[in-house]
Amino acid sequence: MPQIHVGLIGLGNVGSGTLAILHDNARQIREKLGFDLTVRAICSRSLDRHPPAAAALFPDVLRTTDWREVVSHPDVQIVAELVGGTTVAADIVREAIRNGKSVVTANKELMAAQGAEIWDQAIRARICLAMEASVAGGIPIHAVLREGISGDRVEALFGILNGTCNYILTEMETRGEPLDTILAEAQRLGYAEADPSADIDGYDARSKLALLAALAYGVRVTPSDIYLEGIRRISPMDFSYAHRLGHTIRLVGSAHQTPDGLLLAVRPALLARSAILAHVGGAYNAVWVKGVHGGDTFYYGKGAGPGPTGVAVVSDLMRVAREIVNGSPERVSPFAHDRLREYAPISISRQVRPYYLRFRVVDRPGIIASLATILARAHISLEAVLQEPCPNKQDLPFVITLEPTSEAAVRQALDQMSGLDFLLEPPLALPMEPSF
Amino acid sequence: MPQIHVGLIGLGNVGSGTLAILHDNARQIREKLGFDLTVRAICSRSLDRHPPAAAALFPDVLRTTDWREVVSHPDVQIVAELVGGTTVAADIVREAIRNGKSVVTANKELMAAQGAEIWDQAIRARICLAMEASVAGGIPIHAVLREGISGDRVEALFGILNGTCNYILTEMETRGEPLDTILAEAQRLGYAEADPSADIDGYDARSKLALLAALAYGVRVTPSDIYLEGIRRISPMDFSYAHRLGHTIRLVGSAHQTPDGLLLAVRPALLARSAILAHVGGAYNAVWVKGVHGGDTFYYGKGAGPGPTGVAVVSDLMRVAREIVNGSPERVSPFAHDRLREYAPISISRQVRPYYLRFRVVDRPGIIASLATILARAHISLEAVLQEPCPNKQDLPFVITLEPTSEAAVRQALDQMSGLDFLLEPPLALPMEPSF
Repeated sequence: MPQIHVGLIGLGNVGSGTLAILHDNARQIREKLGFDLTVRAICSRSLDRHPPAAAALFPDVLRTTDWREVVSHPDVQIVAELVGGTTVAADIVREAIRNGKSVVTANKELMAAQGAEIWDQAIRARICLAMEASVAGGIPIHAVLREGISGDRVEALFGILNGTCNYILTEMETRGEPLDTILAEAQRLGYAEADPSADIDGYDARSKLALLAALAYGVRVTPSDIYLEGIRRISPMDFSYAHRLGHTIRLVGSAHQTPDGLLLAVRPALLARSAILAHVGGAYNAVWVKGVHGGDTFYYGKGAGPGPTGVAVVSDLMRVAREIVNGSPERVSPFAHDRLREYAPISISRQVRPYYLRFRVVDRPGIIASLATILARAHISLEAVLQEPCPNKQDLPFVITLEPTSEAAVRQALDQMSGLDFLLEPPLALPMEPSF
Repeated sequence: MPQIHVGLIGLGNVGSGTLAILHDNARQIREKLGFDLTVRAICSRSLDRHPPAAAALFPDVLRTTDWREVVSHPDVQIVAELVGGTTVAADIVREAIRNGKSVVTANKELMAAQGAEIWDQAIRARICLAMEASVAGGIPIHAVLREGISGDRVEALFGILNGTCNYILTEMETRGEPLDTILAEAQRLGYAEADPSADIDGYDARSKLALLAALAYGVRVTPSDIYLEGIRRISPMDFSYAHRLGHTIRLVGSAHQTPDGLLLAVRPALLARSAILAHVGGAYNAVWVKGVHGGDTFYYGKGAGPGPTGVAVVSDLMRVAREIVNGSPERVSPFAHDRLREYAPISISRQVRPYYLRFRVVDRPGIIASLATILARAHISLEAVLQEPCPNKQDLPFVITLEPTSEAAVRQALDQMSGLDFLLEPPLALPMEPSF
């Protein structure tokens, strides 16, 4: 019976989860594969000081603090890079491939930034590269796009891809507390990083959308080309207004195939509460795919955590182990397409949506008239004006909704509003996404 | 560049959809595979009389009414069996394998009844066998269970697997019409078969659950071992009561791994409306998987139709074509496990759930007392008694909900109620499934 040996680098949440699953499910893994998947080496910076509990599950393997010992180990056939970031992780992955090892990674940031180059290197070295764990932890969305619905063409894709943002927005929605309070609490509980920017400013979701778009459309996406807006400006009053409109608010990563090209964006948006996507709460992730032939499909699961992400890593290890045993390196490219094409990103300014504009003003006569005049001059039609009761005339919120309008026209109107002295802050403009 | 040749047998809905997608997406398929997937032969009984429009998309291929010409064609490498049923389809699949052709099938009935034997034959012949289209059309649930989350162990699985039943129940829920009216309408529109038994008595959902359980647990399931109850007894009043209880009603196929073994059932059940599964309406299908490590994941899409099922067939053809080009037959078994184990089915009588009991009675004093006495003797605790206003004292419906009780105890109590002369029909007992 063949045996495939794994070397695992990084024993944080994901690494510990991966080891626990490999240990706990060893019998089922053997039943599925028809051979053993064996841990041969473990590397963690803290192994000499306070070794993580998971390391004790495999007492007889090589344990080291030097990743080079793992990627150069003669027995190791698959290296699991679970370190994260784009510095050491890039060295690990590239060195492993140079040494002829297959690679499984959970690293969205690295794969979004350098994935195409790493894949080229992998093809030349005839090794397998797998990255299921890099997007939406527990949801096997790579397997779905790469093979499950590979026969279809993707018209559009919507994702709730950052669990921290979704947790914060869900808590804000149910408890009415502001972002700062919920974020501080999430940081205390270890749900959010000390520097929350990657999550709440949307960079993490953007890396994930870049990978999903590469998978779905076979294009080489540069994350910084994707339109990006985080959730810092969302407040509890926005949920009150959204609810009155039959909607909720989520940070949505979206990809649309238009006749002119591919439009990619990560931004908070209003979602109709009748849509299943609006029911994704807490730290869950979800992806909605609109296929040209297969219609709507929807995928939902935990976005992070040792268990869900560990399942993705172990499932990848099993897939790669099968490829090695069958002698078929890189049977399916990690990006689904045989080659990634270049593409010209379409500017968000061309997207047409109904819009939600939320204002905070010092109350006085003539405010609606001023705003309506600016909108009328930009040929934008108002749908409704909403105002929740508010005793504070010095900080009065209200909402104007717009009929379908281009982002360019909305931006132009907002620019013209910037000189209005009754505005306490620039208006918040959120698109209202079509429901499914 | 290699080229893989497909022979397609059966040009009904699924066959026509498959040809349309192969034609429409040819460029993308080539970009993904790195080679061409070419239709070489088409067989349909009606080709000589009124050839389906889809056949005209491929004018230069062999067109025949004799499936033997396709499965014996020297160029054909993959046979797509899209005939359905278990007679001719079984001959086609077995003959194709004998001739060394790989097989893609959409046939849940055949694969649920004879899948393990067909797979044995496929292994010996070193060909590939794929069956994504056999369950939940547009949802790539086979890819998910076979590879996407293969590293996890499945604790439980819930599925809405029959689109016709889900359509009927959703229409009953929203319009308040009885089953017969909606069914007749669905038959007129071509959504339901002239003989609706396979759908509404649950046989179709049972075949699909058998396949999903084989995939998820690696066991050899005999469909007739699965507890089965159809939807004929559900009426609009059941939705009124279910709504009052914060629930809806769906036909649910479920699999539970218990310490004593695997419990499989297809039956109508109450689902909390707070659960995402309760939002699956119309002809959609969905599968909820509870993983030991990865937690809850959820998959949703259209259950049938030429487009969604065609996508599943084409995705399978692409997967099998890759295996052939890479020379790796049966890299992953269609049932995910290297070998299927035998298993002892656990009787439904051991399942413990809160229950919904709905009665229709001729009203008179002492009814609740009689029923409560029988339940008390069986040591069953009542949760609530509900009654909607009803002017007809000769046919009065009401509902009793029970605290968690074993199915055996409920059945015993129902037996003892069978002699009560005020009952117009045997009580309807539905479990209330836990929400996620």
